[in-house]
Amino acid sequence: MTDLPKYVEIHEEGPREGFQIEPGPISSADKIRLIEALAETGLHHIQVCSFVNPRIVPGWADAETVVAGFKAKPGIHYTGLWFNGNGLERALAFRDKLTITGAISLTASEGFTQKNLHRTHAENLAAMRKQTALHLSHGVPVTRIGVMAAFGCNYQGDISPAQVVSTVEDGMAIAEEAGTEITTISLADTMGWAVPPRIERVLAEVRSRWPDKTLALHLHDTRGLAVANAHAALKMGVSQFDSTVGGLGGCPFAGQPKAAGNICTEELVLLCEEMGIETGIDLDTLIEVGRMAEDIVGHQLPSELIHAGSLDAFRRKAA
Amino acid sequence: MTDLPKYVEIHEEGPREGFQIEPGPISSADKIRLIEALAETGLHHIQVCSFVNPRIVPGWADAETVVAGFKAKPGIHYTGLWFNGNGLERALAFRDKLTITGAISLTASEGFTQKNLHRTHAENLAAMRKQTALHLSHGVPVTRIGVMAAFGCNYQGDISPAQVVSTVEDGMAIAEEAGTEITTISLADTMGWAVPPRIERVLAEVRSRWPDKTLALHLHDTRGLAVANAHAALKMGVSQFDSTVGGLGGCPFAGQPKAAGNICTEELVLLCEEMGIETGIDLDTLIEVGRMAEDIVGHQLPSELIHAGSLDAFRRKAA
Repeated sequence: MTDLPKYVEIHEEGPREGFQIEPGPISSADKIRLIEALAETGLHHIQVCSFVNPRIVPGWADAETVVAGFKAKPGIHYTGLWFNGNGLERALAFRDKLTITGAISLTASEGFTQKNLHRTHAENLAAMRKQTALHLSHGVPVTRIGVMAAFGCNYQGDISPAQVVSTVEDGMAIAEEAGTEITTISLADTMGWAVPPRIERVLAEVRSRWPDKTLALHLHDTRGLAVANAHAALKMGVSQFDSTVGGLGGCPFAGQPKAAGNICTEELVLLCEEMGIETGIDLDTLIEVGRMAEDIVGHQLPSELIHAGSLDAFRRKAA
Repeated sequence: MTDLPKYVEIHEEGPREGFQIEPGPISSADKIRLIEALAETGLHHIQVCSFVNPRIVPGWADAETVVAGFKAKPGIHYTGLWFNGNGLERALAFRDKLTITGAISLTASEGFTQKNLHRTHAENLAAMRKQTALHLSHGVPVTRIGVMAAFGCNYQGDISPAQVVSTVEDGMAIAEEAGTEITTISLADTMGWAVPPRIERVLAEVRSRWPDKTLALHLHDTRGLAVANAHAALKMGVSQFDSTVGGLGGCPFAGQPKAAGNICTEELVLLCEEMGIETGIDLDTLIEVGRMAEDIVGHQLPSELIHAGSLDAFRRKAA
C-alpha cells in the first residue's frame, strides 16, 4: 500500500528559524539577501521573520526592517510567526506583503507546555480560544492546528498517539466553537524524538481519525533521523513539510546546546525528487542558496548535500 | 510485507575509515584508545586498521603499532583491510589477534574501476581471481562478495540494478571456480548515490536472485540520506551494516572535499532499537565513544546524536 503524494508543498523556514537562534548578529541586509535568493528557487512558501519580543529573541529585533526591505516576488507566500496579539498587530501592518493566517497551536506534552509556555494545557486551550477569536475578528483565517512535541518530549518522555489525537481533538473543538474550518493538521517533532515507526503509528491514527485533512510535518534533525522520518511520512501520505535551507536552526531545549536544526530543505527535495514526487524547486539553485546561508552565518551548516552537490549535477557531468 | 531482521550485525569501521582520511596526524595511542573503548560498547566487529601503502595512506603508516598495541577483548572480531598480497601478508602476521577473511571486491561502475583502480572491469576480475586463490592458499576463507558504487557513480552516473546483479554474478563465478562458498553479498554506496527507492529496487533484484545469502550494506552519508537508506534496507531484510562511530570518514572522490563520512553507528543503532531490532550495543556507551572520537580528531563530527544524547537518557530523566 502506498499513499505517496504527487506533489509536496515545502514551507521554507530557514530565515525565521535560523536567524532566531544564530548568535549573530546577522545584518538585516544579509537576511534580505537570503530571502530574495530563496524566492528564486521555486519555493512558494517562505517564512521570513518572527514578530516576537526583541528582549527574548534579539535576532528578530529587526523584523520590520527585513519585511519592509525585501523585494516580494509575485506568486510566493511570505509568512511570519507570532504568539500573541501584539505580534499579530505587527504582522498585520504588512498585510499587503505577507500572507497572514492563524493557527491553533497546542502541545501534546503537558510537561513541555508548562516548561515552555508556563501554562497548563487547560490554560493554553483558553489562550488559544482567545487568540483564534482575535485572528478571526481581524479577518485572518484560522485553518491549521499545530501540535508541538507530537512524537516525544525531553520533559515528559514518550508521547502516545492517543495523546496526539486527543490534542488535535481539543484544537478541533476550539475551531468548531469559533466557527472556522480546519484544513491542515501539522505535527511538530519539536525536540527530535521522532523515529520512523513512531511516525507511522502516529500518522496512521491521525489520518484514520481525520482522513480528509492535509497532514503537515515540522521535523527536527536532532538525532539525525529527520530524512528517514520524512521518508516514512511521505509513504503515509504527508504532503506538506516545514524545512530550513542548509539545516539552519537548532534546538533551544533542555540539554542540547549543540543539537542540529530542522530537516534540510535540500535533502528533503532530493528525497522527494528521487521518489518521483514534485516540489517545484530547482535543487541546484537551492544548493547554491544553502551555501550562501553557510556564508552568512559564518560556520558549517548541517546539510551534507550542500557540501556534496546534487546527483543531477554529477549525472550531467557523467553523461 | 515486512522482512525486518530480528538482529542486525554492525561492523564498526570508524578507526579504519576515520583515521585514513583525517589530516591528522592521530597518535597510535589515540587510535588504540578508541579501539579499546569501542570494544566496551557491545560491538562484535571492529575494523581496526588498513594494511596499505604508507606513501599513499600516511594515516595508516602505524598499522602494525596499533594492532600490536591494543588489548583484545574475547568474543570480538577485530579486522583489517588490505588490497593486495603484501597487505595480506602484513595482516597474516597478526593471525592470532585479527579475524582474517577475504572478499571478492568488485565495482559496478566501469568508470569508477578505471579511475580508482586504473584497471578495466575485466582486468579487475582477473586480479580478483588471483587474489581469491592467494587467500585460499593461505587458508583464509573467502565468503563475501563486495560491490562498490552499487547505487551510482560520480564518473558514470546512475548504475542499473541489472548491472549490480551482473557484477555479483561475476563474483559468484570467481568463487565457484575457486571452490569457495559465498555467504554474504555486500553492496557499497561508495559515493553517496543511494536513495530509498533505489535501495529498494536494487535489493529486491539481488535478493530475488540470491535469496539465501546474507545482504550487507556499506552506506555513506554524502547527501544526508544514509539513515533513510538504512531504514529502507532494514525493511528489505538487510541484516548487516558497516558504519562508523560519530560518522568518521569522508569521501575522497571527485569534487567532494567537504563531504560527509559513513553512516553513523549511533544513529543506526538508535534506528534499529526503535524499530525493535537488536544490535547488542549499549547506545549511551557508544555515544560516549562518539564524543571521544570527536575529541581525538579535534573537530565536530557529523553525528547529530552524539550532540543531542539518546532518547533513553531523556526517558530516564523524565520518568
